[in-house]
Amino acid sequence: MRTKNLKATPQQLAAALEKLSEELPTRIFTDEDSRFRASLDNLRLSFLPDVVIKVQAAQEVQQVLKIANEHTIPVTVRGAGSSATGSSVPLHGGWVLDLSGLNSWEIDVVGRIATVGAGVVTADLQTQVEAVGLFFPPDPSSKKYSTIGGNVACNAGGLRCVKYGVTRDYVLGLQGYLADGSPFKFGLPLKKYVSGLNLRDLLIGSEGMLGVVTSINLKLIPLPEQRWCGMFAFEAESEALDAVAGLFRVGGNPSILEFLDQQTVTCAENYTGKVIFEAHAGAAILLIELDGSAHDVAQQREQLLDFMSDRAVGHREAETEGEAEALWQVRRTCSQSMFSIADTKLNEDVVVPLEKQAELIRYTLALKDEIGLATPTFGHAGDGNLHVHIMYNRDCASDAEKAKAGIQKLMQKVVDLGGVITGEHGIGLAKIPFMSMQHSLAEIAAMRAVKDALDPKGILNPGKVFEPFEVWDHEAVKVELPWDHR
Amino acid sequence: MRTKNLKATPQQLAAALEKLSEELPTRIFTDEDSRFRASLDNLRLSFLPDVVIKVQAAQEVQQVLKIANEHTIPVTVRGAGSSATGSSVPLHGGWVLDLSGLNSWEIDVVGRIATVGAGVVTADLQTQVEAVGLFFPPDPSSKKYSTIGGNVACNAGGLRCVKYGVTRDYVLGLQGYLADGSPFKFGLPLKKYVSGLNLRDLLIGSEGMLGVVTSINLKLIPLPEQRWCGMFAFEAESEALDAVAGLFRVGGNPSILEFLDQQTVTCAENYTGKVIFEAHAGAAILLIELDGSAHDVAQQREQLLDFMSDRAVGHREAETEGEAEALWQVRRTCSQSMFSIADTKLNEDVVVPLEKQAELIRYTLALKDEIGLATPTFGHAGDGNLHVHIMYNRDCASDAEKAKAGIQKLMQKVVDLGGVITGEHGIGLAKIPFMSMQHSLAEIAAMRAVKDALDPKGILNPGKVFEPFEVWDHEAVKVELPWDHR
Repeated sequence: MRTKNLKATPQQLAAALEKLSEELPTRIFTDEDSRFRASLDNLRLSFLPDVVIKVQAAQEVQQVLKIANEHTIPVTVRGAGSSATGSSVPLHGGWVLDLSGLNSWEIDVVGRIATVGAGVVTADLQTQVEAVGLFFPPDPSSKKYSTIGGNVACNAGGLRCVKYGVTRDYVLGLQGYLADGSPFKFGLPLKKYVSGLNLRDLLIGSEGMLGVVTSINLKLIPLPEQRWCGMFAFEAESEALDAVAGLFRVGGNPSILEFLDQQTVTCAENYTGKVIFEAHAGAAILLIELDGSAHDVAQQREQLLDFMSDRAVGHREAETEGEAEALWQVRRTCSQSMFSIADTKLNEDVVVPLEKQAELIRYTLALKDEIGLATPTFGHAGDGNLHVHIMYNRDCASDAEKAKAGIQKLMQKVVDLGGVITGEHGIGLAKIPFMSMQHSLAEIAAMRAVKDALDPKGILNPGKVFEPFEVWDHEAVKVELPWDHR
Repeated sequence: MRTKNLKATPQQLAAALEKLSEELPTRIFTDEDSRFRASLDNLRLSFLPDVVIKVQAAQEVQQVLKIANEHTIPVTVRGAGSSATGSSVPLHGGWVLDLSGLNSWEIDVVGRIATVGAGVVTADLQTQVEAVGLFFPPDPSSKKYSTIGGNVACNAGGLRCVKYGVTRDYVLGLQGYLADGSPFKFGLPLKKYVSGLNLRDLLIGSEGMLGVVTSINLKLIPLPEQRWCGMFAFEAESEALDAVAGLFRVGGNPSILEFLDQQTVTCAENYTGKVIFEAHAGAAILLIELDGSAHDVAQQREQLLDFMSDRAVGHREAETEGEAEALWQVRRTCSQSMFSIADTKLNEDVVVPLEKQAELIRYTLALKDEIGLATPTFGHAGDGNLHVHIMYNRDCASDAEKAKAGIQKLMQKVVDLGGVITGEHGIGLAKIPFMSMQHSLAEIAAMRAVKDALDPKGILNPGKVFEPFEVWDHEAVKVELPWDHR
């Protein structure tokens, strides 16, 4: 097991900082507040960096990397820091390279390509793009905060993947710098590109470990003319999930297809004191969006209502934007209501084959009984990407032990079902213990060989994905983050 | 410049063959005919392998690679051999590994995923998939012969990319073996997957240089209900290409958008003795397909005809399948008619930004005047992916010199326009001389480092992409290949 370059020495740090201060004096922050804020992400484990560097131009990234590589300083790249896995945390100190200042964007309406700085916020880009009749579908729930650079780094998913795919499906080109500061263009703002090895796609989802992306060319598509949203209640979870499979079997093509299990719904109903579907308290729910031309949406809606008529025990439609927002508010309430059960939520973004989802849900109930902790589950049932939550109280050592054991069992079950331990969050620190469940030694060795090939000194985001780490050995900090619901 | 392991010694070859004969005696072919057929692809440069191995099961690939890696034998993987670039030619001899026997397939209609052996022929898969109401859009012109494995190896494109993207956009998982025979699963038959480094996508387009893919999980989408096809004539090429840009500006979303320049059309008209649009001999042409629901196609058609009414000087619609086939036959005639100008066609699959296509066409005309050779051009104008042809007679040394110089100039122009030297064929042998126009030394070094990391002995498809090679130093063989039009 290699452990090279995990920490820089005080001498290395001092020499590098001196050089950096000469070159980019106004970009360097060493005050406690800046360092603390750059020390954590949504996993809420804090590891302090020595320096935070807030660049304002792509070229400055080159200067930073040249110095860091020469002096072997760990460099952890950061956007909004909304990662769920610790992937943007400077585990071994060194420098945090904050790219949120790289927020330029331009839209080519003929080529249907947006060229954006890594620091552009996802929702802001979507707004700009929709203003000219175009559409950037990837829709992570963090989109009001997360940056496109971060979305690329973890190949973000979200709600609309069932019809529109994930971030990777919209990336045409990446520009940035290799670990030694060499500039790269992997792909260009072009619809087709097959020259040389496909390092563009290798960098997508590489969690800042292979290079620093400063600019991204994104494919855009025409904005659908209309959207429709409906919510359906089912007596049993298995019936809801059977309806999901059945809907695909008859040719359904929803743009969103979300499932809420009975634990989730009950939790929300207890929290708000309001039953979502009267006479069907605690019913499992499917939330479905359709999109397309007005005519097609009308036709799809009719087929959907017909299909659901003898399957769902209740349904509600959104006729207006306001009503659609109310339906989505139910989904959001579910998430925040879980904190009424316990103060800590483990959110595992597992994926299983579509037809194994019912078995996974049955397993979450067996697990609930076994560990005595709630396991409310909801998510993107059109992708098989369910967020299984385990709720526990942080200060209760025995609950924490049970939660830890529960996650381990869950991950093994997911892999046994032919699934994957992470569908949209990535590995970061949190999922390191499960890498060996998912991947063979040869696969991991191949990944590490590629990492070493592109970052021989190991300065980029050291300690992530491949090195041993156990989240449970570290105490989470209590901190209010911008996206906290409560 | 490294030159390691480019050729195996007779001793290495003999020892390896002995071992292989013990393990897979019925899969080995050393007769002259088998070796010759495996010695070339559509580039028609022949380099004889020592042995051809036709496997019948994925597991046999592992046996082959273990022996080859131990004895340092070059292994060149082959499907149909329809590559245009020499990428499937065993440049340094050794073993050709023919995967066309790996032709199993299954379709999961709920998950909308096809799992296919690397040897499955693209068009056959499309037929099977469409029979259950699903759609696999990637549509290379070689699809009646080419295999999915080959499509993945070069990230094949085709006609429908303008709306539906390229092969990469449909690959969910790759299973196969690394150079040393270790099995890998990079991705799975799942809609979302972000565990570990994204070696799946790195392998896509890697031309058999990083690993051997035996099985592929492909995303499928619902089959569009209806298609419509129309052909439009323009007085000038610039007017046709302005119409392309304008169509995107007003929200058009064609499933195919092909451009034929005036040289191409004139050539076809001379060849067939029939003017395509009466009173507009030699007019530039756009061939457009629309797809979607019947209602949407009708609406799109109306908008398109309205948009074209004051732009095109003539148009023709296909009301039936037979009429659509007649329109596509025009496109196919163009290609084969070019051989009436000269016996050899260089086909360069360049890509430029959409709004630079008119400039590229002007350049092909200037080039025609400069080198005195025809430069008929057609292609996927919705992607900026134009096939620029240079026609010359192989036995005329001065023509060949001019053609060689012409390609060099063309490639530089494409790069100067912000384009890429290859949009769907890949580098192989043919485009090696232009790699340094497209990529910086650091980019190429990064690609080579990745290659070395995954194939340390350099046994997989040696001599391609990175090593010096000049097509013009080698004589093409005269051979009839299954896909030859004439």
